[in-house]
Parts: sequence; structure tokens; C-alpha cells
Amino acid sequence: MTTGIDAAFIAARNDALRRDLAHDYEHLGDQLARRGIDLEHVRAQVATFGVAIPSWGVGTGGTRFARFPGPGEPRHVFDKLQDCGVIQQLARATPTVSLHIPWDKCTDWSELRGQAASLGLAFDAMNSNTFSDQPGQPRSYKFGSLTHTDAATRAQAVAHNLECIDIGRKLGSKALTVWVGDGSNFPGQHHFRRAFDRYLESTRQIYAALPDDWRMFLEHKICEPAFYSTVIQDWGSSYLAASALGPKAQCLVDLGHHAPNVNIELIVARLIAAGKLAGFHFNDSKYGDDDLDAGSVSPYRLFLVFNELVAAAHERAPGFDPAYMLDQSHNVTDPIESLMTSAAQVQRSYAQALLVDRDALDAAQEANDAMTATHLLKAAFQTDVTPLLQRVRADAGGAIDPVATYRASGYRRQVAEARPAALSGGGGIV
Amino acid sequence: MTTGIDAAFIAARNDALRRDLAHDYEHLGDQLARRGIDLEHVRAQVATFGVAIPSWGVGTGGTRFARFPGPGEPRHVFDKLQDCGVIQQLARATPTVSLHIPWDKCTDWSELRGQAASLGLAFDAMNSNTFSDQPGQPRSYKFGSLTHTDAATRAQAVAHNLECIDIGRKLGSKALTVWVGDGSNFPGQHHFRRAFDRYLESTRQIYAALPDDWRMFLEHKICEPAFYSTVIQDWGSSYLAASALGPKAQCLVDLGHHAPNVNIELIVARLIAAGKLAGFHFNDSKYGDDDLDAGSVSPYRLFLVFNELVAAAHERAPGFDPAYMLDQSHNVTDPIESLMTSAAQVQRSYAQALLVDRDALDAAQEANDAMTATHLLKAAFQTDVTPLLQRVRADAGGAIDPVATYRASGYRRQVAEARPAALSGGGGIV
Amino acid sequence: MTTGIDAAFIAARNDALRRDLAHDYEHLGDQLARRGIDLEHVRAQVATFGVAIPSWGVGTGGTRFARFPGPGEPRHVFDKLQDCGVIQQLARATPTVSLHIPWDKCTDWSELRGQAASLGLAFDAMNSNTFSDQPGQPRSYKFGSLTHTDAATRAQAVAHNLECIDIGRKLGSKALTVWVGDGSNFPGQHHFRRAFDRYLESTRQIYAALPDDWRMFLEHKICEPAFYSTVIQDWGSSYLAASALGPKAQCLVDLGHHAPNVNIELIVARLIAAGKLAGFHFNDSKYGDDDLDAGSVSPYRLFLVFNELVAAAHERAPGFDPAYMLDQSHNVTDPIESLMTSAAQVQRSYAQALLVDRDALDAAQEANDAMTATHLLKAAFQTDVTPLLQRVRADAGGAIDPVATYRASGYRRQVAEARPAALSGGGGIV
Amino acid sequence: MTTGIDAAFIAARNDALRRDLAHDYEHLGDQLARRGIDLEHVRAQVATFGVAIPSWGVGTGGTRFARFPGPGEPRHVFDKLQDCGVIQQLARATPTVSLHIPWDKCTDWSELRGQAASLGLAFDAMNSNTFSDQPGQPRSYKFGSLTHTDAATRAQAVAHNLECIDIGRKLGSKALTVWVGDGSNFPGQHHFRRAFDRYLESTRQIYAALPDDWRMFLEHKICEPAFYSTVIQDWGSSYLAASALGPKAQCLVDLGHHAPNVNIELIVARLIAAGKLAGFHFNDSKYGDDDLDAGSVSPYRLFLVFNELVAAAHERAPGFDPAYMLDQSHNVTDPIESLMTSAAQVQRSYAQALLVDRDALDAAQEANDAMTATHLLKAAFQTDVTPLLQRVRADAGGAIDPVATYRASGYRRQVAEARPAALSGGGGIV
Repeated sequence: MTTGIDAAFIAARNDALRRDLAHDYEHLGDQLARRGIDLEHVRAQVATFGVAIPSWGVGTGGTRFARFPGPGEPRHVFDKLQDCGVIQQLARATPTVSLHIPWDKCTDWSELRGQAASLGLAFDAMNSNTFSDQPGQPRSYKFGSLTHTDAATRAQAVAHNLECIDIGRKLGSKALTVWVGDGSNFPGQHHFRRAFDRYLESTRQIYAALPDDWRMFLEHKICEPAFYSTVIQDWGSSYLAASALGPKAQCLVDLGHHAPNVNIELIVARLIAAGKLAGFHFNDSKYGDDDLDAGSVSPYRLFLVFNELVAAAHERAPGFDPAYMLDQSHNVTDPIESLMTSAAQVQRSYAQALLVDRDALDAAQEANDAMTATHLLKAAFQTDVTPLLQRVRADAGGAIDPVATYRASGYRRQVAEARPAALSGGGGIV
Repeated sequence: MTTGIDAAFIAARNDALRRDLAHDYEHLGDQLARRGIDLEHVRAQVATFGVAIPSWGVGTGGTRFARFPGPGEPRHVFDKLQDCGVIQQLARATPTVSLHIPWDKCTDWSELRGQAASLGLAFDAMNSNTFSDQPGQPRSYKFGSLTHTDAATRAQAVAHNLECIDIGRKLGSKALTVWVGDGSNFPGQHHFRRAFDRYLESTRQIYAALPDDWRMFLEHKICEPAFYSTVIQDWGSSYLAASALGPKAQCLVDLGHHAPNVNIELIVARLIAAGKLAGFHFNDSKYGDDDLDAGSVSPYRLFLVFNELVAAAHERAPGFDPAYMLDQSHNVTDPIESLMTSAAQVQRSYAQALLVDRDALDAAQEANDAMTATHLLKAAFQTDVTPLLQRVRADAGGAIDPVATYRASGYRRQVAEARPAALSGGGGIV
Repeated sequence: MTTGIDAAFIAARNDALRRDLAHDYEHLGDQLARRGIDLEHVRAQVATFGVAIPSWGVGTGGTRFARFPGPGEPRHVFDKLQDCGVIQQLARATPTVSLHIPWDKCTDWSELRGQAASLGLAFDAMNSNTFSDQPGQPRSYKFGSLTHTDAATRAQAVAHNLECIDIGRKLGSKALTVWVGDGSNFPGQHHFRRAFDRYLESTRQIYAALPDDWRMFLEHKICEPAFYSTVIQDWGSSYLAASALGPKAQCLVDLGHHAPNVNIELIVARLIAAGKLAGFHFNDSKYGDDDLDAGSVSPYRLFLVFNELVAAAHERAPGFDPAYMLDQSHNVTDPIESLMTSAAQVQRSYAQALLVDRDALDAAQEANDAMTATHLLKAAFQTDVTPLLQRVRADAGGAIDPVATYRASGYRRQVAEARPAALSGGGGIV
Repeated sequence: MTTGIDAAFIAARNDALRRDLAHDYEHLGDQLARRGIDLEHVRAQVATFGVAIPSWGVGTGGTRFARFPGPGEPRHVFDKLQDCGVIQQLARATPTVSLHIPWDKCTDWSELRGQAASLGLAFDAMNSNTFSDQPGQPRSYKFGSLTHTDAATRAQAVAHNLECIDIGRKLGSKALTVWVGDGSNFPGQHHFRRAFDRYLESTRQIYAALPDDWRMFLEHKICEPAFYSTVIQDWGSSYLAASALGPKAQCLVDLGHHAPNVNIELIVARLIAAGKLAGFHFNDSKYGDDDLDAGSVSPYRLFLVFNELVAAAHERAPGFDPAYMLDQSHNVTDPIESLMTSAAQVQRSYAQALLVDRDALDAAQEANDAMTATHLLKAAFQTDVTPLLQRVRADAGGAIDPVATYRASGYRRQVAEARPAALSGGGGIV
């Protein structure tokens, strides 16, 4: 089995860039020192930052119209983990992987755990799938899963979630993310209140089975695959459900799951205040749940989300402990390149948010000096923290320039030889 | 003072239409009987339906670009009440008026209450105004009111709300609607969590002053006049606040205050289930808070909202007691015509929702028969209930054709003579 | 082969409803006569109205998350045509079928044409597919088709369109609809102006091959499957392209392909005025390209579109000759039921638009009497034309109640026996 | 009359910052040199960049709900020009002013021209106002201006535009911007095609009066003040009109005038390709026509617009000559601070777009290497060009830190003493 990129190769690539990096890093330190910021202190924080990779993200994604696979598509969870290992090896910001059941099912979970450990990876939240039917499945989810009018179908969906918890325990996971496609395509199809009640009834059974040190992440989405209504359509419904369930249930924010124009960073602030922010599925969107690469279209929005997160940490908001995960569909790029780049973009937003002068911001807000307040955010966002991110990667053994190093390594060509070519499909996300 | 339209004049106009009405009404009854619906039973329910008129709605509205007054603009609350009287006289669906302070301030509240009584009108929810500055006001609301960083400004805004309650008590009102323009125009301007905390602190003081038999209606809005964030931006924030305040605080839904594409009827269902639906500000919108006439652009959406309301009443949802009000800006029509037409449109939606076969709908939903379920709603919506509405009006002494009768009455011409011409303004909603 | 529903069965079902229909139809005639409208005249127009069925619409649709087939899924174009025959037999508003190549490829086009003729069906516009790869295809459309940077890929896509024209000639079609998925997912991926130039270069080659009596329909779409930009993103770009190509090129409007809030009926008016309205893909949407059943969510919007169409015909707008087609994804209903219901909904909108008093509307518009103008539209829309539609169907040998008759016929059960069960898929539109 | 900020004061403020600036500028030069970019070459281009100030922008703006003036509101066009002079003096990116008639009418145009010259200012496009009524105006624009059904009202609106041209000739302006509020609030109110025809008829008369070296800028807007339809609702309608008028008519893009989610940079590319891009009204928006400060919410979008502009200039697109103007509503900030900051933000976007490696981008686009293409844009956007902008300002005699220098200067306090306090208004944009 190909086991990643040779460390010496990475080091050699880095050597060619070290001098410029040192120069740029030093100048960044000077600049920040003038603003009263200790770059070393920031670096220490950034160095500990990580965002989980979704196992399905390393395969080429698609739309309902088509999927165009690339060379070397991973065939199973072991291939996926191998790709995740390369991402972490080069970019050093993705120490965990989030699995999706049944897509990632295997026969030997301890072998999988062992492979992960050997790659320096651990397991993040488990994801259940009750939005598509699996071969041989007794009941169909065509008309819903956790909210289905048929009790046996709901029970099947609950059982699947319990299985996910069970697998997660074997892998060291500490959370279950529940996203359902349940909803309706026609006015009248759903009895809104009864559907929500059934959702609560089902999720209560899942909640009851959660280990003590686990959390349950409820994920809302305005539409798709249901196009008239969804059962957890927004953070308000997610909050109602999480409150009904109990303290271990929290609300997960996927950046692409909201109505147009919605202020997502404000929702983040509300969930923090309510002690109910589970964490994030990072991606970017221009039209809907586009699942574009994080920060590729709206980098300032991503920064503004992190501004809320850093402020909450700074102010020690009670119960604040968000989980970070990428959730993207890589339709036209090499997924490994997109994931490395996206992780770095999320890390960049975090680093920039750490540069905000919080005392000055507090004072400007108190004085209603909107110009100064917004300038303080822009000053942080406009700072080019590239040398900081490069340094953090290099220090951890990663690549100063992950994409160039990856391309030079020939990894994709190698796995393309080892893995059979995938067929173009009629569509779908897997 | 002109005291409205002569009853004999209305009756004479009706006489010309009675024969056709009787014919149409009878046929509607036959049609519905075939579907198992007793038209007389429906008529009894529709006859008791009422929606409040906002006092500001009888004046011509405007935008930030301009306001183009029409002839006979009301000068003060007594003129406004007179116009409301005509609306109720002809359309018989608007028995109450909702006042806005300080716009409707007068020196003798008992005289006002007397005038209202003589016109067959009562007073609905009181509306406070902390979104604009009044001459001589010590503190400005430029940077907020109930959420202002300055405690004295917040206190001033709280005091204004207490005054509104006080006036309302004199007039027989039973509710206070609180909508604030507080928010921000720049990222960073507001500390989201602190602003929300200040909102809670202020509204708690207002809540504490509510009489026992009053309710407090919190109104959310995604934007405008603030264009980056608002403090109660959606029903989720409204729910958090109403829950924090207590059982007398509920969430008011204005149909134009949501992000694009949002499913409003689903929000209504969520608020009903949570026991927190205060009621509605009815209007219609295509782009934002357009304040168009109710049902003028999206009549099916209005019906779908009433479908939720009628279902909740049918199922005796606990604590279900919504207040109904129009809230529109009449920029290009005679406000009296718009308000009569809009009230009838709301009434129409209610009547149509009463025609839904609830048992059949329950069965279709339970069986996931989306086609039948949606067809049952469409069957109700496609029913032309015009004869029913005409009959209800005529029975109550109103006009079968309110707009034609109003135009024939010459009322507008009369008040245009009595009231001085208003100046075109540089904009604004009043 | 099952050849549809027995005519005697339909007649027997109708017999039970004829008396009530006669009663309702007579009353509708009375009502309209009072408004100066001759119901017989309207009936004659409605009786000639037809909307094409997309061949892919008779199969269960899906999303990128999943597809849940129903019983009796059609296996090939002959099965699809059989289903279309049943739709036309019962609903009598869908005399043509629109094919999609290569999905509908067969070995004997004259046999297909013969089958269609025997079912009383003809062929509408041909649809090419360059948005997904077919097995064995030399060049991939992953990065575009008609706009691809690679000339050979563009040539392949052009050739495919020429093949579609060739097939269409054999079937009696008179139009080619060109929709491409070409676009980009990342800022910078596409050179916008060069991509558009390549689109023009490719479509010019297709245009040159059009038979003299054919038209070419260009279909715009704001997003999906590309999520940052599309090459024909709106009617403006579609118009630029159609103008560059020549008089046989026109702009097709799919109701779900626009940005949120956009006024589609206004676009229709602009295209009519420019002599460039090709026609429609009817469906409904709440969030994006949801492909819901026509008029199921926004029936008034569909009416307003037909109001423009009927006005244009009434005023003899030069070059006005729109093509009508349904284009929907039936994910949770029996596609046959959805297509019959949607065709009737489109027909309903047309019938209602015929009821608008155009002289009175002209006068109200000229006088800026917005209230009367909008009331005239509402008066037409609120008229329950169900008896008219039922009568038109019955007169043509169709079913007064198509869905109930279809369900009673057992057709679905029969084809489910003849056609093997389809597998649940991982997603996709087919 | 206060004549601005003392040059020595500016120089003294700059002196304190020059050393750090020199250090930062040098490092930026080093960085860019490594990427093959000559900073001096970029500086020369940025130094010539200018964006016009709208005369109305120096007053505090408002919404339909309220306007909260600040101290020292300008009373007339001479005050406004004085404020514009300060902006240009400090920020050195706004050498022209765009007037609005009748708001800026005065009795001595040559005096005004002289004052402008003495401040180093010239006059950009003239703006006509037919969206509000002026005292004594014979015909009202309540129901439209250039598209009104009444010929005399249209003639009045045409005459006003001719007057604007006349004034502009006296001031050295070379363009007329036409934006009308014409539209409808109700379905049916407007006959869409006839209204558009009247618009063409009216604008043809204005076009005929344009001096040979002038251009006419048509500005589209999706809604507001009309909320159901507008006559020039999007770039498609704007293009149709500009094409009908002739080569001197072009399409102006205001960043806030589009439907949600619309890709504005793509529209810019289409208009460039069609030779019809007039230029811009820069501002930012989150919800609608919010008129927020340029780049304050979506700085990357602003950069992407400039990426199209710089590419068009680089490729010598025929007829490419866009006009740049700010058009913002400063509701909560000192307008002078907002305008200086916004001009610098626009300048920043231009500078960043100049840093894009166009040859590498062309190659990546040709190779469908989306990752490299988007990375090239991000590399330019992430570059902190602050030292470049500071240097350009300092070289021209402006302030390295304009806002801080402005605050320290006491200018606002001085004009607040000279100009009487404005009253809080009921709303409006002026």
C-alpha cells in the first residue's frame, strides 16, 4: 500500500522556500508588534487548530445531473483514510476524520482504528445516513426516516443511528451528527407539527443511547432533498429540538444550509449565547447548498464567523466548545487539493480573527463608533497571515506549499495505478 | 364632521346585486354540500372573523425616495379613526384599530375611545416607536433604543413603552407590540451577544409592567432600517427572547420580515407548537419588506398560513389565540380601498382554509399520498368564496362591493375638502 | 403490451359526474355572462391548448442525495411513450412528447413514430444532453461541452446536437432545445468572455444545421450543476446569444432557473417585446430549480405568466408563438398523476388568463388605477374554472377526474407487473 | 469659509508614520518582485485611479423609517463641495463630484465650477431626479416619470433631463445618469411592454439632446421604490434600452441593484463583451439596495469585479471605458469618513486586481485547472496592499491615515459650528 509522501521529499521542497519564509515571517512579526500583537503567541494558538475531514470528501462529488470521477478514486474507507493521511501529512490542520455510515462500513473496525493511528489520524463525529436507501433495507426512506408516519420505518432509522454510535465507540469518536432529508415537496404533504413531534420522539431514543461523554449534533437545512419544507429547516427548529432533548444535544451550522442573505455569524452568536453551538460544517456557497470550497467565494464571511468564535473564547462564553469539520463537494478539482486548501483557508480565518484588537473593538462598540469597529475587523482580515500558516505547517513537518508539493509528489498518479477507474455516474453525492 | 357613508346608500347599492348574490350563494352551497361541507356553518365562522387596521395605514405611505400623498390625508388620530370607521362600515371585517405612539397621541383619550365606540370600533395592540427621534427627545435612537449601549437611552425607550401600555389601558387595548429598528450597518459595529442581552434587560422591564390580562408581541425582522444585522432578526431570536420573558410574551409574524424563499407557514407551525404564536402583521412582498397589500402577489401563501391556523384551531392546539392585523404601506392606491380589499383577502384565505377536508388530509398525510394531500388544499383554495364573503358583509350591514360603493359615495372627495392638502415629502413611512 | 385505459371505463367513470358537471358548467356560464364573457368562446380556446410532456418526466426523479423509484418505472422510450399515452388519454392537454437524447435513443425511429401516432401523440422539441458523460464517449464534459477550452470536446458536443436534429427530423419535431451545464465552481476557473465566445462559436455551427422550419431554443439557468457561474446565466445572456445567432434562435424560460425574487412575468414580457420568446419549461419552485409540479406552490405566478401570454396574443405581438413544455422532477408522487395534474394546472392558468377583461384593464392601466387593474386580474384568477376544464376533457374523450380515474384503472399495477423493479440509486435526475 | 485641512497638519501627521511605511513598502516590493511583479509599475497605475463622490453622499442618509443627522450637515451644494474637497485632500482618490439635480441647484454655476477648481475637483456624471416631486412641480411622478401614461408628465421628465445636461455642460460634465423609480406595486398596474415603449420614447428624446462627447448611463434596479415591477429591472432590460438608443447609451451597474445571489462580476463581463458597460455605482449590500460602504461586507466580490475590469483593460476590450462612482447611504457614520474609507477600499480592489498573474491565469483556465486559477486570484486578494495605498496618498499630498488625520483635524467640529443643526426627519435619502 502506498503510505503517503516521503518526509524527505517534503523537507527538500520546503528547503527551497525557507529563506523567503523566514524573511516574510519576520516582517509579519514586526508589523504585528507595532499593533501590540505577539506573533509567537498567535502561532501557538494556530498550531493547535484542527478541522475534521469528511471521509466522503476525498472522493469526487457530483450533482443530480452528473458525477465526473477523477483518477484514483478511493474505493473504500481504507483508501479514504490513506488520502486523509496525505492531506494531514502536508497541510497539518486536519488531524481527524469524520465517517459516514454505511458508506464507510468495514469488517474490522480495530484494523481501521490502527490504520488511522499509524497515519496520525483520529475519528471525529459519526454521520448517519437515513436519506437514501441501501440495498436490502426493509423499509424505504422515500417519505422520511426519523419523522416517517410509519413507526417501523422510524424504528429502523433510530436503530441505524444507534449502530453509528456503536461503531463510533469502537473508533474513539465522541459525537453523532444527525442530518435527515425528511421534509415535503408539496403543500399539505406533511403535517408540520406532527412531523416535528415524530422527529423529537425518534431523536429522544437516539439521545438516550448516547454515551455520557458524547454529544449529538443536530443539523438544520432549509431545503434539499425536500423542496417545499424540511423538518429542521433553520436554527430555530434546531434549537427547539436540541432544547427538548437535553444538554448533550446541540445545533450544528453548515454554512450552505440557510436562506439567501441570512446573516450566519449572527446565528452563530445566538447559538453561543444559548449554549447550543455544536460546531460547523465548513464550505462556501453562492446560490444554495453549493458545497464549494470553504472561503472560496466569501472569505470575509468565513472570517466574520471566526470573529464570533474567537470573541466567545476570549470572553469565556459558558459551554463554548465547537467542533469543526469540512463538508464540501469537490466536483472539478482533485479532492486532496481542495481539502488541503480549504483547511488552510479555515485556519487562515481563525488566525486573522486572533489578530482583532478585542479591547479596542469593545471600546468602539460601546461608543457606537461603527467606523472604528469595522476598521478593526478589516485590519485583521487584510493582514496577510500566509507566512504564519506556512511556518506552522513547516514546524509540524508539513509542506510550506502543500498543493505544489502534492503535485510534485506523484501521489495521485500512484493511486490511480493502484485503484481501478471509476465510472461516470448519473449523479449523486458519493 | 363627516361621519361615514349613509346606510341607506349602502343598502341601495346592495339591492342591485342581491339577486345575483343569492343565486351564486346558493350554487356555492350546493357545490360545498356535495363535498360534505355545510356553507351555513362556514358562514357563521367567517362572520366572526376580524383583522385590525393599523392607524398609520389610512395615510398614504412612502419609501425612502419619496412619498406622494393623495387627497384628504388624515391629519391626526381622529381623522384616522374616521377613515377606519368607513372601512369597517363597508367591509365589516376590521372591528379594531391598532394605534402607534407617538404618532397617534392626543390630549383626550376618553374622547378618542368614545369616537371609536360610536363608529363600532375598538382598540387592538398598541405599537411603540423607538425607531425614530421625536422633536425634543433627550436621547437619540440613532444607535439603538432598547439595546443601546447607553443606559439612559435604554431607559428612555423603556419608559416610552410603559407610556404606550398606559395609554392602551385607557383605550381598552390588551397587547403591546414591540418592534425595534436596533441593529448594525457594519460588521463589528454591534457586539451581537451583548446587544441581545441589553434587549432582554430592557424588555424585562416592559414585561414587568404589563397588566395581567395583556400580552407582549415581539416582532422580528431580518433587516431594515439596519442593513447588516438586527437584534431580533428571525423567529429563532424572537423565540429566545419571548421564552426568556415569560408566558405573556409571544412572537409576532410579519409576512414581509423574512429572508427570501423562507417557508413562513412552517414558521407559523413551529410557533404554534411552541405555544408562542402572538399573531400576524399581514401584507405581501415580492422582494423584501415591501408592505404590499395582503395576498396581492402571493395569495396561495396567505392561504397556506391560514391552513396552519385553521388546523391548529381544529386540533385545539394549546394556547392558540393569534391576533390579526394588517400592516401595509399604500403608496399608489387610496388607503381606504387597499385596506378594505386586503381585509377581504385575509378573510377569503380564512374562509378557504375552513373548506379543507381535515379528515381526508390527515389520512393522505398518514399514507404519504402527497398528491391527494396537496389536491385537498388546492380544492379549497380554488373554490370561489366570493359569494360567501359578500353575504357575510351584506348580513352585517356592509357593502356587497365595498370599493365600488366607496367610490360612488364620494367620501374621499368630501374629506379632501375638509382636510388640507398634504405636502409631498422626501420620503418616509408616515 | 398494455395499451392504456379502456375508453369505456373512462366513460363510465365520467357518467357518474356528468350531472354535477353540467350544473356547475351552466352556473359558470351564467356568472361569466354577467361579466360579458362567452364561456363557449373561452372553451373553444382552451380545447386547443396543449403542453408537451418531457419523456424523462414519466420516470421517478431524484436529487443528488437519492432517488427512490416507484413501481413500474419505464425502462426505455417505448415504455415512456406508453405512459405519455395514458396521460394524454385521460387529461387531454398533452398531445406532444419532448425527447431527450441519448436517454431516449432507440434502434427504430419510425417504429417509435408509429407508436406515438397510434397513441395520438406527436413530438415536440428535441433535447440534447452534453451535461453528463455517456459510456464510451471519447471526451468528457467534466469541464464543459459547447464552451470547453478543448476544440475537440466542443466538436463532439456540436456533433451530438446535430444528431439530435437528425433524429428530430425523423420524428417530425420542429425545434431543438439547448441547455448546457457549462460553467464554473470557482472564481477564476472560467474566463467569462472567452467561454461565452466559445458558446457562440459552437451554437453557430448547430444553428447552421437547423432545417428551415425549425427553431433553436436557448435555455438559461442561474446555477446548477455549476455553482459559481454559468455560461447562459440569465435571460440577458440568452438574449445576447439568440440575437447573435439569428431569427430562428429564441430564449426558453424555465420557471425555476432564476435568482430569488425575480419577476418572471416581466422577463416574459421583455422577451415577447424583443420577439425572442421561445417558450417555457413549466414547473414550480420555492428555493431554486426545485422542479416541483407546475403551480403547486405559486399558482398566481403561473397565472401572471399566462396573463402576459394571453395579452400578447390578444394584441397580436409580432412573432409571438411560444412552445409549452412541462419540466419537472417527480420525486414523491406517481409521475403520471403529477403530469396530468400539472398539465391541468397550466391549462387552468391559461383559461383564467382568458377571463381577464382586457379593455377594462387597458383603461385602468392608462388611468393609473392600480386597484382596479389588480382587481381585474384577481377576478379572473379567483374564478373557479374547474367545470370548464372538466368539460373540455370530457368532450375530448378524457376523464372528468383524471387522477381518480387513473387510480381506479389499475394501470400502474399492470405496468409494475410488466416492468422489472428499478433499483434505488445514489441520486441523479434520470 | 473653512477651506479644508491645513497641508502642514497633514504632513506632520504623516511624518510620524513615514518610517514604518517605508519599511512596509519595501517589504511589499520584495514580496512582489519574487512573484515577478514590479511594485513601481503597479503604483503608477494606482496613482491615476479615481472614483467620483456623489454630492448627496456627504450628508447623512436615512431609511424610510428615519434619518438621524449628524453635526455639520451640509446645507447646499457649496457646503457639499467643501466636504468633497476635504475627502480628496486626505484620501486622494476622489478627484470628481457627481451632482444631483434639483438637489444641487444653485444660482451661479460658474461660481460653483470655480470653487470646485480651487479645491482640485471636477464634475463627473450629472444625475437627474424624476423619482420625487419638487414643490411647485406641475405634474406628479407618483405614477411614473419617463414611462408615465400621461404625455405631459413624460415631457416634464424629459425636460428635466435636458436641463441636467444643460447644467452639466456648464460644469464640464460629460455624462448623464438616468435612474427612474418608475414601476408598479400591483400585478396588472403596469402594461409591461407599453411602459417599456414609453421609456424608450422618452429616453430617445434625451439621447437626441446629448452633446457629441457625452454618454448616457442607464441604471437598472430590481425594486424599490416600486415593489412589484420596475421598468429597467435588470441588465437585460438596460441592454435592450441602451441598444435601442445608440452607441452613446450604456449600462450602469450599481452593486446593490440585483436579485439575491446574482453573480455581478459575470454581468460586468457580459456588458464589457457587448461594449455596453457604462460604469459603476459602488456600494455594498447584504439584503437589497442597502447602500452600505463599498467592500464593507463583501470585499472579495468587489475584488472579483475589478478582476474583470483589469482583465478587460489588459486585453484591450473594445470600447472599454468605465466610469466609477460611489453611491452609498451613510446612516450611522460620519459621511466624510465613510467616503474616504470606501474610496480607499475601491482603490485597494483595483490594486489587488493588478497583482493577478494574467498569463498564469490564462494558462490555468485553458487547462481547466480550477485550483490554480482560483489560487491566483486569492494570492492577489490576500496581498496586503495597504503600504502601496498609503504611499500613493502620501506622494500626492494626502494623509497616510486619512480617518485619523481627519479626526485630529477638528474639521467636523468647525463645520458644525458654521452650519446649523439639521432636524431629525421622518425618513428619506436626502
